[in-house]
Amino acid sequence: MASNHRKLKIIHTADLHLGVALQGMSYEKRERRINDFFKNLEEIVNFAIKNECDFFIIAGDIFSNPLPRGEIFNKFSYLIGRLVERNIKVVAVAGNHDTPPNLIQRNTTLGLQLAGIRNFKYIDYRSKPEPLLLEGYYSKRRIIFYAIPFIYPEAISEGERSIVEYEKRIYDLFDEQLSNSMNIEDVDYRMAIAHLTVEGAKYSEKVEPTYTYELKVRKSFLNHLVKLGDIDYFALGHIHLHQDINSKASYSGSIERINFGEMSDEKGCIFIYEDKGGLTREFIRL
Amino acid sequence: MASNHRKLKIIHTADLHLGVALQGMSYEKRERRINDFFKNLEEIVNFAIKNECDFFIIAGDIFSNPLPRGEIFNKFSYLIGRLVERNIKVVAVAGNHDTPPNLIQRNTTLGLQLAGIRNFKYIDYRSKPEPLLLEGYYSKRRIIFYAIPFIYPEAISEGERSIVEYEKRIYDLFDEQLSNSMNIEDVDYRMAIAHLTVEGAKYSEKVEPTYTYELKVRKSFLNHLVKLGDIDYFALGHIHLHQDINSKASYSGSIERINFGEMSDEKGCIFIYEDKGGLTREFIRL
Ligand SMILES: [Mn+2]
Ligand SMILES: [Mn+2]
Ligand SMILES: [Mn+2]
Ligand SMILES: [Mn+2]
Repeated sequence: MASNHRKLKIIHTADLHLGVALQGMSYEKRERRINDFFKNLEEIVNFAIKNECDFFIIAGDIFSNPLPRGEIFNKFSYLIGRLVERNIKVVAVAGNHDTPPNLIQRNTTLGLQLAGIRNFKYIDYRSKPEPLLLEGYYSKRRIIFYAIPFIYPEAISEGERSIVEYEKRIYDLFDEQLSNSMNIEDVDYRMAIAHLTVEGAKYSEKVEPTYTYELKVRKSFLNHLVKLGDIDYFALGHIHLHQDINSKASYSGSIERINFGEMSDEKGCIFIYEDKGGLTREFIRL
Repeated sequence: MASNHRKLKIIHTADLHLGVALQGMSYEKRERRINDFFKNLEEIVNFAIKNECDFFIIAGDIFSNPLPRGEIFNKFSYLIGRLVERNIKVVAVAGNHDTPPNLIQRNTTLGLQLAGIRNFKYIDYRSKPEPLLLEGYYSKRRIIFYAIPFIYPEAISEGERSIVEYEKRIYDLFDEQLSNSMNIEDVDYRMAIAHLTVEGAKYSEKVEPTYTYELKVRKSFLNHLVKLGDIDYFALGHIHLHQDINSKASYSGSIERINFGEMSDEKGCIFIYEDKGGLTREFIRL
């Protein structure tokens, strides 16, 4: 690799929840609230552009709603447009909030990819499980991304809903991508992006009950995937509190406080960059 | 102009009504019905690609709904993607069906433009009124487009709703674009795209009452705009029955029969092309 290439730089964000607003708010308050999220996302986008990042990862829950209102979708599209015109490649996976509740409907986000926006990839539960090989525009590093969109408990028949079965579904999705990537050569890094709950992850005060009843994966399972796929970084979404799960896996946390339970959380994104031959993770506060 | 350039070719379509389905239909029937519209649109797209058209005009009512379902939006986005990747420039204006009922909401269609799809322009009632100068990829002809999206009667205060006031609104919108285009040089053709009812236009049997109570513009007014703007072609949408209004203005009609009243209508699109120095209009049947 030519030595004049720049170092790999990646932004990992998640849980944007664009369009979210508490019920019962006045119209002006709602709009202001919605704009707070966009302002934060814009700040992250500006950071990515300023730092000439190669990739911009969104680990699910882009929108608070499976069918975002037009003006919410359009503001998001505009920010995506700013990234891709600077050759920053966006890889987004679907979370629970932006996935329609059945297998027929799909999120409008896919439309951007289908219309031919280069540098924009959106992977939802119905996407074909295939590894995504992308080359960074600035660093020329070749990355394989493995995507694990949110898997609804409802996708598993009721009698079979257990941690073991949930992990099996995720394993199968991951493994299929892994098998299909075996013959890809000259890969610099391997990354996974998933929207799920890891058992034992910290929650914000008061919001714990929301996650309590969800299917989770064990930390040992996550470690297993990291080893199996030789994963250099595992970008997680779903838990809104930023935290590292192990030496390779982190939740970026949400970009804004969604409810009062998250009042004291620090919000931001994760900046991943090459440093002394390895990858360094840094939490960038908003 | 170099003589080895190809002749200008344009497709004019309108009233796609993607996602429309009659109430009370079974799920399978609905899906089949929705697909009929997509099949017809795809046929028109294939025709445009095969004939290497420079422009693809959509004169409003792209969707049957101001907030199209994700999978409907995505299928449309895919077809737009096929056109723009072949350098066919798409110019779409908003109709009544795809315009949200207030001035705050907007259609997701704008998101494609905002995300940076080159060769795709969408103009709704809130867009800045400015002339659009585009050069055909194949013919190199330079066209100015003047867009007149559907103007809701509700945008005019109740006491003032009259043909005269309606024409005035449309005139002002047109005139502002005209004034801003005065200094543009080397223009080969000038085209207008509008979603409105021309008084005296023919309707399909049985559906007349729908249009009867709407605000209309007079044919003389349309002729006036044609002269004022030196318009070479006036692409109309809203009336679902294909027809020529005058020597420059035509309704393409809808691409599929929307209801039983349109049962005997012939459906298709208009193919406009340079011929012996002028523009020829041809109705292409589906
Ligand atoms: Mn979330
Ligand atoms: Mn989530
Ligand atoms: Mn219509
Ligand atoms: Mn209409």
